[in-house]
Amino acid sequence: MRAEELGERRLIELLVRGLYRNSRVVAGAGEDDAALLSFGDRQLVATSDIMFASTHFPRGMKPEHIGRKAAVANLSDLAAMGASPVAMLFSFGIPAGFEVAELRRVIRGIDAACSEYDAPFVGGDTKKAKELTICGVALGEVRKDGALRRCNAKAGDVVAVTGEIGNAALGLKMIIAGMKTAGYQKLTSAFLHPRARIEEGKAIAECRVNAAGMDITDGLLFSAAEIARMSGVCLYLEKDRIPVSEEARKFARKYGISEDFLLNNGEDYELLVTIRKGEFQNVKNRVEAVGARLIKIGNVIRGRGVLLDGRKLKITGYDSLKSRQP
Amino acid sequence: MRAEELGERRLIELLVRGLYRNSRVVAGAGEDDAALLSFGDRQLVATSDIMFASTHFPRGMKPEHIGRKAAVANLSDLAAMGASPVAMLFSFGIPAGFEVAELRRVIRGIDAACSEYDAPFVGGDTKKAKELTICGVALGEVRKDGALRRCNAKAGDVVAVTGEIGNAALGLKMIIAGMKTAGYQKLTSAFLHPRARIEEGKAIAECRVNAAGMDITDGLLFSAAEIARMSGVCLYLEKDRIPVSEEARKFARKYGISEDFLLNNGEDYELLVTIRKGEFQNVKNRVEAVGARLIKIGNVIRGRGVLLDGRKLKITGYDSLKSRQP
Repeated sequence: MRAEELGERRLIELLVRGLYRNSRVVAGAGEDDAALLSFGDRQLVATSDIMFASTHFPRGMKPEHIGRKAAVANLSDLAAMGASPVAMLFSFGIPAGFEVAELRRVIRGIDAACSEYDAPFVGGDTKKAKELTICGVALGEVRKDGALRRCNAKAGDVVAVTGEIGNAALGLKMIIAGMKTAGYQKLTSAFLHPRARIEEGKAIAECRVNAAGMDITDGLLFSAAEIARMSGVCLYLEKDRIPVSEEARKFARKYGISEDFLLNNGEDYELLVTIRKGEFQNVKNRVEAVGARLIKIGNVIRGRGVLLDGRKLKITGYDSLKSRQP
Repeated sequence: MRAEELGERRLIELLVRGLYRNSRVVAGAGEDDAALLSFGDRQLVATSDIMFASTHFPRGMKPEHIGRKAAVANLSDLAAMGASPVAMLFSFGIPAGFEVAELRRVIRGIDAACSEYDAPFVGGDTKKAKELTICGVALGEVRKDGALRRCNAKAGDVVAVTGEIGNAALGLKMIIAGMKTAGYQKLTSAFLHPRARIEEGKAIAECRVNAAGMDITDGLLFSAAEIARMSGVCLYLEKDRIPVSEEARKFARKYGISEDFLLNNGEDYELLVTIRKGEFQNVKNRVEAVGARLIKIGNVIRGRGVLLDGRKLKITGYDSLKSRQP
């Protein structure tokens, strides 16, 4: 069978089956946003994200944007575990004829993000390749038993997100189509200059309430389904509560884009979390104290899968192996 | 300027200049075999190595060999720091039409190495790409101030290696040329089934003698020059002491391959170390106690660069960006 027939997720499921593990591994391959490992008096959180020019960098992204994205995609996985960033590594594949000046701009984008999140770029590798390739690694730490886990959701929990859904997916659409950004900068900027929700993740982790968490870079509904699957519960979402920006609504209306598109497409670096009902207000206060938001969008109930206003959903998410674009 | 004009090493030097760092960073980008970071009561060692089918996987390598190599290349960087492996991550770029069965064989090679070195494969990423790409990450730990560093060599030190030089480079030559292996299995096996010198690195680190260390995957002389440069000393090597296998000598004689080729070509996963003269016998005993070897090949003297029997050398090493093969 060919990789594209299977798709990214079933391929990963197949590949990680039966891997060697030892007692240090708290969360292994395919189990969470990042690996979780016992390490001395703390836990080490480690994640890696690989990007290829032909699949991930549409024309219209400047080299600095590409660098930033490579860093933030990884930092977002730390955020989803509630981890504090420690350091980053980046390995590059570079076509022989690639312009060094352009590469320096990519690094400038990376380093700006590393500095912003206090996660120094400390190592990696550089080799010749057919296309520009960036493999980022983010290393972080959490207190023992402090991590947000996909498997932590329980019936009765509140389901919440840290911000608006769909801006980045529409921004990407605009960039691919080469559209004018006037009036819609919020959308393109969400795609080109994403922020990892590190402060939000840390604030939630510090409450030590066994929250569930995942970022929504592959789509809100995909992440909801993933938390539901890993926790053995059902996430009941209320459409009217899901925060969608004025710009996204306006753009979607104008170009006839369905709300399903917004809920099924990724690129947003918000977190989806579930928190015990009795703890929610306290956690929300803590998140707001660091200048951020936590917006209730539903509840965890008994059952399986995801319901949107009671309706069962077909969840697609983004799959680079199956996708024909960009 | 184009990347290939600059070459891998000058490119890396240029790219890592002036990166953000903080007080946790003990060794940052471009400074050692791996990054070294303060982490609770220990130090975290992290390294990443990226490989592309078109540059790194000659025909004749089975998928299991490719997987093993991707793991061992990273583990070797931990060995060079004297670190104990903790875990590994692997990110893959996969052509849409790639056979899943072949990919499973790659993973089998990776997992076998992970199990052999007690470094579980705990995470990573999978995305569509133009060519098979494997980006490995190895995470390890050392006691504070226990790491072998490139900058630790001092005039008066003994220079030593952990095993034979040149087997793997000749093995690669044979594989690329599709030659019969009869009588030369040692050479092809050194390339196809490499071993990371983890036990050697750990035994040396446990002696806490501030040893210098580096692996020699880019060539013995290249690594000697690197330790010399980072330590501000000269490594004086004695040709007759450098261990070359009977098979390598025979092969080199038969096909008119110079000794310079053996000393300048990489792929061997041995360690090059320097150790204070008064400590050498003790360290050698400790290494032999774990069933391994430490072979003196010269001394550290005042000055700069590398001398081979007193002769100054032009050092090439391997550079994927400049290379036209394999």
